Parts: sequence; C-alpha cells; structure tokens
Amino acid sequence: MSTQSTQSARTPTEWTRLDEKTRRRILAHTPDLMVVEVEFAPGGVGAPHTHPHVQATYVREGTFDFVVSGEPITITDGDSIVVPSNELHGCESATGGTLIDVFTPAREDFLPRG
Amino acid sequence: MSTQSTQSARTPTEWTRLDEKTRRRILAHTPDLMVVEVEFAPGGVGAPHTHPHVQATYVREGTFDFVVSGEPITITDGDSIVVPSNELHGCESATGGTLIDVFTPAREDFLPRG
Repeated sequence: MSTQSTQSARTPTEWTRLDEKTRRRILAHTPDLMVVEVEFAPGGVGAPHTHPHVQATYVREGTFDFVVSGEPITITDGDSIVVPSNELHGCESATGGTLIDVFTPAREDFLPRG
Repeated sequence: MSTQSTQSARTPTEWTRLDEKTRRRILAHTPDLMVVEVEFAPGGVGAPHTHPHVQATYVREGTFDFVVSGEPITITDGDSIVVPSNELHGCESATGGTLIDVFTPAREDFLPRG
C-alpha cells in the first residue's frame, strides 16, 4: 500500500486468457482507477455479469453489441459508454476488436496474486 | 439528476477548443466516471495543472511526453497511466495524436452549461 496512492503501476501485466476468443491485461492502475485492455477474436463474447465497480468502456477497434440493463447498444471504434455500479452488462463482437475498460475502484480481483 | 445514476450520457459533446493545437469533447459520462477525447496537433501542449479528480490517460494515437509530479514519462499508442488526485501533470506531443482521459468523479467543470 505504501506507494499505491501516489504512484501507479503502469507496466502491462501478462495476458490473462478468458476463453478461446477473449483475453485481457491490465495496462495501469491505482486503487482508484484501473485500465484494462480486452481483446476479442471475431465472435468473442463477454457473458452478462455485474460488479459493484463503475465501468467506462472505450472501443479501440471493432464493433461490439452490448446489452446494458436489458438495453441493446452497439458501439464501434472511438465510441464510449459508462456502465453504472451493479448494472447487468455483456457484449459480443462479430468483428472482433479491442476494448479499453476503466474501472473505479480498481478490480482487485484482476490483480495477479503475489 | 434523475437519470444520471442509472443511465450514462453517451452522445459525444461538441468539441471545445482549448487553444490553437488542442481540443476536447466528452464521449460519455455519469457522475462517477467521465470519458474525454483530447486531440493534439503536432506540438500541442497540455500545460501543467492539478485537479482533485483521479485521471486515467490512454493513448489512442501518437507519442506524448508527460511530466507527472516532476517525473518525465513518455507514452505512446496503447500505453496508459493513472494520475492520482491533485498530482501536478502536463504533457506535450511532437507527433500530435489523441488521448482518452477518464476521470473519477466526473469533471463537472467540463460539462456544457445548460
């Protein structure tokens, strides 16, 4: 905890494979904010889920069909959405592509175990 | 305030010109998180400043020479840093390019006046 509040970890972690078509890595984080890159191969799916963390999603590349709280939202290169705390959300991408997800607070559950 | 806690504003605002070489627009926001796109022409500068909001910066394109709390940090396409609350930070970009800045809480001072 000593340096976390004033210095961010900013070396990307190794990739964590989520399934055959998706993987993620952490790009930078402090306890307050965490930046995560998520790669999708064509047809990749992020199954619907919830978490207390608020999430901003920015599309680096590709087209993504999201459902957030039952509402369909298609976003593409350069678009962004914010998913409030505990809202059910998921996506799939026929094109494949890359999302930049930013969480507040940090997803401690994503950090490599030391 | 009625819908802000469960629905995000996700239509980009108009561009706000900051100076001859830089402009920004808000891509999406809730009270907890705000996603801002900042474009730099070659030689563009973000003068050193502070704010209480925690800031994640993701490089969409270009190379940026940051100074954060006196420490020089050069970041380029796909890199990210997190700037803690009230830390002095600024940047310049010889190449020009685009940053995606995410703030918690939202920068109320960036919102168009209604």
